[in-house]
Amino acid sequence: MKVSVFRKEHFNSAHRLYNKDWDEETNARVFGKCSNPNYHGHNYDIIVKVTGEIDSRTGYVIDMKELSTLIKEEILQAFDHKNLNLDTEEFKDLIPTAENIAVVSYNKLRKRLDEKFDLKIKLYETERNFVEYPVS
Amino acid sequence: MKVSVFRKEHFNSAHRLYNKDWDEETNARVFGKCSNPNYHGHNYDIIVKVTGEIDSRTGYVIDMKELSTLIKEEILQAFDHKNLNLDTEEFKDLIPTAENIAVVSYNKLRKRLDEKFDLKIKLYETERNFVEYPVS
Amino acid sequence: MKVSVFRKEHFNSAHRLYNKDWDEETNARVFGKCSNPNYHGHNYDIIVKVTGEIDSRTGYVIDMKELSTLIKEEILQAFDHKNLNLDTEEFKDLIPTAENIAVVSYNKLRKRLDEKFDLKIKLYETERNFVEYPVS
Amino acid sequence: MKVSVFRKEHFNSAHRLYNKDWDEETNARVFGKCSNPNYHGHNYDIIVKVTGEIDSRTGYVIDMKELSTLIKEEILQAFDHKNLNLDTEEFKDLIPTAENIAVVSYNKLRKRLDEKFDLKIKLYETERNFVEYPVS
Amino acid sequence: MKVSVFRKEHFNSAHRLYNKDWDEETNARVFGKCSNPNYHGHNYDIIVKVTGEIDSRTGYVIDMKELSTLIKEEILQAFDHKNLNLDTEEFKDLIPTAENIAVVSYNKLRKRLDEKFDLKIKLYETERNFVEYPVS
Amino acid sequence: MKVSVFRKEHFNSAHRLYNKDWDEETNARVFGKCSNPNYHGHNYDIIVKVTGEIDSRTGYVIDMKELSTLIKEEILQAFDHKNLNLDTEEFKDLIPTAENIAVVSYNKLRKRLDEKFDLKIKLYETERNFVEYPVS
Repeated sequence: MKVSVFRKEHFNSAHRLYNKDWDEETNARVFGKCSNPNYHGHNYDIIVKVTGEIDSRTGYVIDMKELSTLIKEEILQAFDHKNLNLDTEEFKDLIPTAENIAVVSYNKLRKRLDEKFDLKIKLYETERNFVEYPVS
Repeated sequence: MKVSVFRKEHFNSAHRLYNKDWDEETNARVFGKCSNPNYHGHNYDIIVKVTGEIDSRTGYVIDMKELSTLIKEEILQAFDHKNLNLDTEEFKDLIPTAENIAVVSYNKLRKRLDEKFDLKIKLYETERNFVEYPVS
Repeated sequence: MKVSVFRKEHFNSAHRLYNKDWDEETNARVFGKCSNPNYHGHNYDIIVKVTGEIDSRTGYVIDMKELSTLIKEEILQAFDHKNLNLDTEEFKDLIPTAENIAVVSYNKLRKRLDEKFDLKIKLYETERNFVEYPVS
Repeated sequence: MKVSVFRKEHFNSAHRLYNKDWDEETNARVFGKCSNPNYHGHNYDIIVKVTGEIDSRTGYVIDMKELSTLIKEEILQAFDHKNLNLDTEEFKDLIPTAENIAVVSYNKLRKRLDEKFDLKIKLYETERNFVEYPVS
Repeated sequence: MKVSVFRKEHFNSAHRLYNKDWDEETNARVFGKCSNPNYHGHNYDIIVKVTGEIDSRTGYVIDMKELSTLIKEEILQAFDHKNLNLDTEEFKDLIPTAENIAVVSYNKLRKRLDEKFDLKIKLYETERNFVEYPVS
Repeated sequence: MKVSVFRKEHFNSAHRLYNKDWDEETNARVFGKCSNPNYHGHNYDIIVKVTGEIDSRTGYVIDMKELSTLIKEEILQAFDHKNLNLDTEEFKDLIPTAENIAVVSYNKLRKRLDEKFDLKIKLYETERNFVEYPVS
């Protein structure tokens, strides 16, 4: 009996969309105000979806407290109240778009999550802009 | 022309996570405060997804009023303002986790819904913890 | 590296559910108050999901500003602050149910969107009634 | 011991902003797309605030079921799935702006509500545009 | 320079509306399904409003972390994952309506909060039913 | 006939809580992770409340399009996709807490808004932390 469970957490970060191979002018043209040199920021909501069998002893797919702790250790500790461009290893050479944050978050959680579970990430940059990885 | 339609309803219930095969101590260790002996409760949101062909005469996959009535008869009448552990047949021998409530809700609706429709349940226990069944 | 990106926009329209092949009485019986002869209306939320490869130069699947502009040109310009039955070509002979609005919106956007992208529409008529096309 | 209680209900209506003393051109200039001759519409949320003493026998200021019924009888029955300009007495000679809908709703409820209660209306035309009457 | 600051927290509790001076029949008639003998439950949202002068050294009226801790110590520790009727001193002889929970929460926080601050409580029992104390 | 009208807008900014009269250590102790030297950020929601008489010719207190334009000119142009500490005059010598952003926003809008209107600002830094100025 497979069920998907979802846990929502949030973090607040500064970032700037900036391609190091381009000059400031090209970055400004491509990314517009999202490339403001002194950064801007977001309240990110991350929804982690874990799919697996219900354990009949607990009625759980996975203990939500453990899942919440895992997200806090891997994602919030790395990104919350940080400047994604300056304060993280992950985005030193990777543009911190919502797409890339979702892929990076997936990879960080995938390493820690038991192989028997499927994993999917939904990341809200704003209420109107959000992304999902992997695709279904 | 297949389309999925969604109807959201809600119900308020008390429950306790408790495995009858374990003593109180084990239940407390595994389920934490969710096993409080005198129960706690939630505002549950249930989103019922029905997939089928658009009827060209009505432009509907299914009449949302009928779907709403069906959810009220099968789910709200059984669970709303009830103690899931004490007041329902369904959770007499089944731990009322979000996962199990979703599976039970699916089975109750599946029996009543025409076979031509696909059915999926999303159940929110809180804004931050929710589940989906069957998996996609 | 495929990712899905989502953009939410909204529009406010009047409509009436009405099948021209039926008399007023049949329309009233089938559609209830949704067939009120003088129309009623909704705040529609449309969520457009675009799936494709991340462009490594931008970190984008698609520029959200371009996607937003596309939705405004194709959907909001056609439907916002309009009477769907009287003011649009699309619903001259098609009942403007949420199902049909989603299919029509998909077709309008599909023509304008690069073939390399997958497209899916979620349309909220109210917070409790919404639809998705195509189905997954 | 005075407490304020709030009950939220919603209704879906078509309307048009139109001043009968002006020609179409002036209406279009002043009200823009909100004056579309064939109407547009909204999902209105109404929050009714009632302030009074807690009844020590019930712990209630007012029975929320009674308050909900009152709102349904006075507001939803009059406005839900209606064209405010054409189908209602209240807006025959009054422009159905959010401001006027709030004042009219207040007057309709005030007549039915016991004088011992204070009453205030918050009306959401969209998530981003809303009004309150009377002012505090 | 006085500003109001708001902090939202939530807790999940079981309760039953029941007046000990009445028999079961009267309770059922007055409180309906809210008096279900085996309890039901809610996800409560509590918004605590504190009004005071901005401290020019910090730009804060009050440190939100301290306010959050205070709410957790006084409200969540007492009510979260509890049966309000059975597990709390506060509602041993007081019906746990939203009105009374708000007043009790106010009194618990008022004792702990510096006198220089004004305090107000908004308590959501559901998205559609909520209360405020004291009144403005 | 006085009514209050509300308009919600949003902006995304980076900021850092930092008192220039203190060393880094004191800032870190007082402001915690909110003082991260490389900044973090938020999606701010601002709700502007304007109170005045209904103009009987329009049914408006104020044209919401004009109010929206005013907020965009005064607040979004100054703060959206900016670093509040580095990119703005307003917070050069003022700590950009939610409290101070609300007061500054009030002062900027007050200058532009006709004296006949009352003005109040609600500013959401996160869904759980928000402020209001002036106080009621």
